[in-house]
Amino acid sequence: MLKAGVIGASGYTGAELLRILWLHPEIQVVLATANRYAGVPIGSLYPSLAGAYPGSFDAYDPAEAAEECDVLFLGLPHGESMKALPSLIDAGIKVVDLSADFRLDDPAEYERWYQVTHEAPELLAEAVYGIPEIDRERIAGTRITANPGCYPTSALLGLYPLARAGLIGGQVVIDAKSGVSGAGRKLTLETHFPQIADGVEPYAVSGHRHLPEIRAELNRLSPGRELEVLFTPHLVPMNRGILCTMYVTMTEAPAGGDLRALFEDAYGEEEFVHLLEEGKYPGTKAVQGSNNCHLALEQGQGGRTLVVMSAIDNLVKGASGQAVQNMNVMCGLPEAAGLAGPGLFP
Amino acid sequence: MLKAGVIGASGYTGAELLRILWLHPEIQVVLATANRYAGVPIGSLYPSLAGAYPGSFDAYDPAEAAEECDVLFLGLPHGESMKALPSLIDAGIKVVDLSADFRLDDPAEYERWYQVTHEAPELLAEAVYGIPEIDRERIAGTRITANPGCYPTSALLGLYPLARAGLIGGQVVIDAKSGVSGAGRKLTLETHFPQIADGVEPYAVSGHRHLPEIRAELNRLSPGRELEVLFTPHLVPMNRGILCTMYVTMTEAPAGGDLRALFEDAYGEEEFVHLLEEGKYPGTKAVQGSNNCHLALEQGQGGRTLVVMSAIDNLVKGASGQAVQNMNVMCGLPEAAGLAGPGLFP
Amino acid sequence: MLKAGVIGASGYTGAELLRILWLHPEIQVVLATANRYAGVPIGSLYPSLAGAYPGSFDAYDPAEAAEECDVLFLGLPHGESMKALPSLIDAGIKVVDLSADFRLDDPAEYERWYQVTHEAPELLAEAVYGIPEIDRERIAGTRITANPGCYPTSALLGLYPLARAGLIGGQVVIDAKSGVSGAGRKLTLETHFPQIADGVEPYAVSGHRHLPEIRAELNRLSPGRELEVLFTPHLVPMNRGILCTMYVTMTEAPAGGDLRALFEDAYGEEEFVHLLEEGKYPGTKAVQGSNNCHLALEQGQGGRTLVVMSAIDNLVKGASGQAVQNMNVMCGLPEAAGLAGPGLFP
Amino acid sequence: MLKAGVIGASGYTGAELLRILWLHPEIQVVLATANRYAGVPIGSLYPSLAGAYPGSFDAYDPAEAAEECDVLFLGLPHGESMKALPSLIDAGIKVVDLSADFRLDDPAEYERWYQVTHEAPELLAEAVYGIPEIDRERIAGTRITANPGCYPTSALLGLYPLARAGLIGGQVVIDAKSGVSGAGRKLTLETHFPQIADGVEPYAVSGHRHLPEIRAELNRLSPGRELEVLFTPHLVPMNRGILCTMYVTMTEAPAGGDLRALFEDAYGEEEFVHLLEEGKYPGTKAVQGSNNCHLALEQGQGGRTLVVMSAIDNLVKGASGQAVQNMNVMCGLPEAAGLAGPGLFP
Repeated sequence: MLKAGVIGASGYTGAELLRILWLHPEIQVVLATANRYAGVPIGSLYPSLAGAYPGSFDAYDPAEAAEECDVLFLGLPHGESMKALPSLIDAGIKVVDLSADFRLDDPAEYERWYQVTHEAPELLAEAVYGIPEIDRERIAGTRITANPGCYPTSALLGLYPLARAGLIGGQVVIDAKSGVSGAGRKLTLETHFPQIADGVEPYAVSGHRHLPEIRAELNRLSPGRELEVLFTPHLVPMNRGILCTMYVTMTEAPAGGDLRALFEDAYGEEEFVHLLEEGKYPGTKAVQGSNNCHLALEQGQGGRTLVVMSAIDNLVKGASGQAVQNMNVMCGLPEAAGLAGPGLFP
Repeated sequence: MLKAGVIGASGYTGAELLRILWLHPEIQVVLATANRYAGVPIGSLYPSLAGAYPGSFDAYDPAEAAEECDVLFLGLPHGESMKALPSLIDAGIKVVDLSADFRLDDPAEYERWYQVTHEAPELLAEAVYGIPEIDRERIAGTRITANPGCYPTSALLGLYPLARAGLIGGQVVIDAKSGVSGAGRKLTLETHFPQIADGVEPYAVSGHRHLPEIRAELNRLSPGRELEVLFTPHLVPMNRGILCTMYVTMTEAPAGGDLRALFEDAYGEEEFVHLLEEGKYPGTKAVQGSNNCHLALEQGQGGRTLVVMSAIDNLVKGASGQAVQNMNVMCGLPEAAGLAGPGLFP
Repeated sequence: MLKAGVIGASGYTGAELLRILWLHPEIQVVLATANRYAGVPIGSLYPSLAGAYPGSFDAYDPAEAAEECDVLFLGLPHGESMKALPSLIDAGIKVVDLSADFRLDDPAEYERWYQVTHEAPELLAEAVYGIPEIDRERIAGTRITANPGCYPTSALLGLYPLARAGLIGGQVVIDAKSGVSGAGRKLTLETHFPQIADGVEPYAVSGHRHLPEIRAELNRLSPGRELEVLFTPHLVPMNRGILCTMYVTMTEAPAGGDLRALFEDAYGEEEFVHLLEEGKYPGTKAVQGSNNCHLALEQGQGGRTLVVMSAIDNLVKGASGQAVQNMNVMCGLPEAAGLAGPGLFP
Repeated sequence: MLKAGVIGASGYTGAELLRILWLHPEIQVVLATANRYAGVPIGSLYPSLAGAYPGSFDAYDPAEAAEECDVLFLGLPHGESMKALPSLIDAGIKVVDLSADFRLDDPAEYERWYQVTHEAPELLAEAVYGIPEIDRERIAGTRITANPGCYPTSALLGLYPLARAGLIGGQVVIDAKSGVSGAGRKLTLETHFPQIADGVEPYAVSGHRHLPEIRAELNRLSPGRELEVLFTPHLVPMNRGILCTMYVTMTEAPAGGDLRALFEDAYGEEEFVHLLEEGKYPGTKAVQGSNNCHLALEQGQGGRTLVVMSAIDNLVKGASGQAVQNMNVMCGLPEAAGLAGPGLFP
């Protein structure tokens, strides 16, 4: 049994980590910190966890965390992870960081999007952007995984087979629809029930922080191309789920079967990524509560544009599930441990 | 007072017509037919209408309809309007047809998408595709308005100022999100509450029947161009509303202010179409229950692609409200009669 | 045209007043105040109102309000209305107060439930608890209407015919289900979308502030009885609506027909209150956006307990609609002016 | 590994059985039948199950079922289980029946509520009404468990400690709120998304089929009393969950602490039933996807009436989860096998 800690456990991704790790056969959670709620029973904030976690949230003490844990999940806000992480790494702890602090290789790009100077740029090269289906080996060899954003995970899983085959010819439009839990537990007018229930709306249309992640990865996978990536997120009145509908201008237009073969190649052996049978399209409900990603392709409208659709649960494959998957890879555990199983439907 | 009838009044667009017409100061509803529910109190199907309409649905009798009514709204299924309409026109009745039967000028295109031969092709030239903000004069002069589909109304209101200025340079991606009432009152697994609530999914990705409407209108507005139109509808777990997020490849990229001027030009005098202040994006909740269309533009992501967003209530501006607006224009009534007023929020 | 002002117009009941008053043929809104948002365009907070109200919220100035307006709606928080109201009354303005400050006759009871000493107890006797269907004449003669709470309106409309006939024999259980807009625009964890969407829960089970209102009115209508009133509110994942399911222990059990006659007697002539046909039960969707109240009775489970069901839109008949109705009565306008019409369905 | 079959696997409770059994360490599902969908891939109906169940639904063949399986779950409609069950029992198979056919001891009562004559009355005495927290030993010794209805499970878990202590003094009002999945996968107007989303309504107020179950069990637990049970179900716009708010007239009113002690006594050792800390009330979201039942008591409104609240997931503890729990008990497996773990929140 490895000993794990969740630092910043009171948000939705933290609580989801606790839920998943409770089901994990090889992990014991020995620490769940939340400075704001130190001493508060976990079950008071999350009655769903009351039976599984009878204890309280702890205050965060780096020395204690380093001593008690083999692996740590950082669920801290952007800007705080980069402060906490170096000493933990020095103490020999493996870390999965769920913040954005180590996702972008370029500290200037980080500063541009997060309006703060990076304080641990020397660790950026070591941190691996963690989508196991794309970078399994590099994740296995690192001490730091930068757990990707929810939108980028959904988008990149759909685009990866095309990008590495060099088939993306210029423009990629990513029209994303997210459940409200993606906005977190923090109270805002935009996530106040009467403002959003029974309606849909776009936000951050002029530029969302997940755009540079997607762009950087696509450029890495398809070096030398000048891809124009457009990304528009929308809030949908649902709790969980991200659906990315993507319109990809192709360099050439291979026949449907060849495209499917590309995807089968990339994901045929994967536990969590499934290309749906032809004519079926992914919905977020089918992946709810699971670490699965459902994909579909459609060329039916003709032309050189391919429609790629990708659905995940933003809190599982889009955050805490992928974090556990990354940890499994980093620690040499079976990759699906704690994560396998169908979604919760309906 | 003009006398109006609603033929095919038991569906959602029929009931919405009854609701709106009750508020109309110059219209008296003298007929509401629904063969399947003939003799059933209107309030039994729609308790919301019980007080306003104490009577029952009638069976449809063309002669009676022609005799009793000055104007008729046809809410019949596709394929039935083209059978019913000719004799009504001959009897001197003005007709707003909410089906698709008279929306496409080309009977072959109609046949291709609706799998049925058109039975009144001689009336296609007379029928006007009815978006008053685009074709007010032609609507004023016709006996037949083909009331547009909900998706095309939302999409075309957003694209019209660009199309008529010849600024659309090639590809138009229309990613549309619709409330479930758009699928009608007919029971299907896709609209069964547990299948769709708390989730989102695309449908008809290989080609939706509203695509040819949009394409035909865009070609009419921008003659001589070869526009590639992609259209993907999604079901969102909400009752009403359509949001179109559109990605338009521009021939050139005028500055933001110039683009806004184009829209102000087109809609500055309009009662129902509003360009939101810069930095605000339309949501479906703000137009719920109203005949309004909210628009926004965004160039912030750079490049030659413009993001245009358009929100309407699918049952009002997307169907019954626009039908009443068309009737007002056809009958010389004040265009906003029965239709003015804020949306219902929250 | 009477001139009306809405003091405290930025909350949901304030915005709903603006929506309704815009439709009112005899009212002109000349003032909409919100100190916190003074100078902010109304359409920025409520895009649904943008077209109808192109101006901004004002700061509240009592002298200006008294000078400009014939009638005022107070949408201030509890505790502030009792400070603002006396000088307005002195200035000859008629006031509909939407707060709780003048609902309870007994200042000690007010203090007990609202933890603040009443500052205008001398006006309590003059203020009329405003449900026109119960107290039309007293409302017509007063300068101050205390607009009832949303829950009490729904409950009392269902119980009134029984209470005044002396048929309630002891216990009344009121199990109430409310849409989230009833909790207002203020951000709380309980109304944060992911906490409540797709779930249901009770709150304030040990005693809700609307309980004393209900109890006081029932005692007034059924003097001399010792009624035990239990009231449990629940939050339902919907925007609008209140459904009260009430279990009434009867003194005796008149046959179904006799009970219906009692309700017909009370409401047969009413514009807004409808007893549904037998075997039909009220849902909140059928009254959405309307000032209607739908009622049903059920004795089918036998015994001396009668089930009474009552549905309203909490923001209309439960708040702003009833406020306008009260104003109509106070000002001698047609009682349904601005309020008639079907609900918005679906 | 025991071999299990699910007969009637295409409905929501069937699919939920497949989901749960996949997670069960000691069960292998060897058969999933659905005559209507025989040959159809399970993943076509339920994409959430596609990865876990690559095969297709089978047609039902009793001999094959008896030969291949150690234990069977019957998810057949009412009236069909009683035909299928006798031969299975004769073949030595243990059966958990999810229909109502073996829930009522009295065949006349069954006939009254289900309008069909019971065809296997000789097995009624052997069938055990299966709530393990109430009847663990009897379940352990039977070949047939009648898996209770979702409403009765929620209600009885809340009432059991009071009933067996003889504290229920006469009237019990059960006001129940259910998610729409409780109505099943069958298409009806009541469960059509636009008819119910964003609203709430009661149904079957004159008498729901789950009422006799509740009444029979309460009488068994509190023999000799004449309890008046009122039960009103409501449809809430959510996928899963049942909340019962119950108003219990007590014979006497023990202090709060004593009441809590009664519940601690009954459930202190239970894995799945939790009494919340004082002042907290159960919501359905906290038990979503889990086999947990959350309970709370409230005496705060005074008088002799106690408010008991009980929340479960209707498809888990209210159906398929409890079915697996019953099977575990019947087969001598650890009772929580396949069922433990937190709910899915948010």
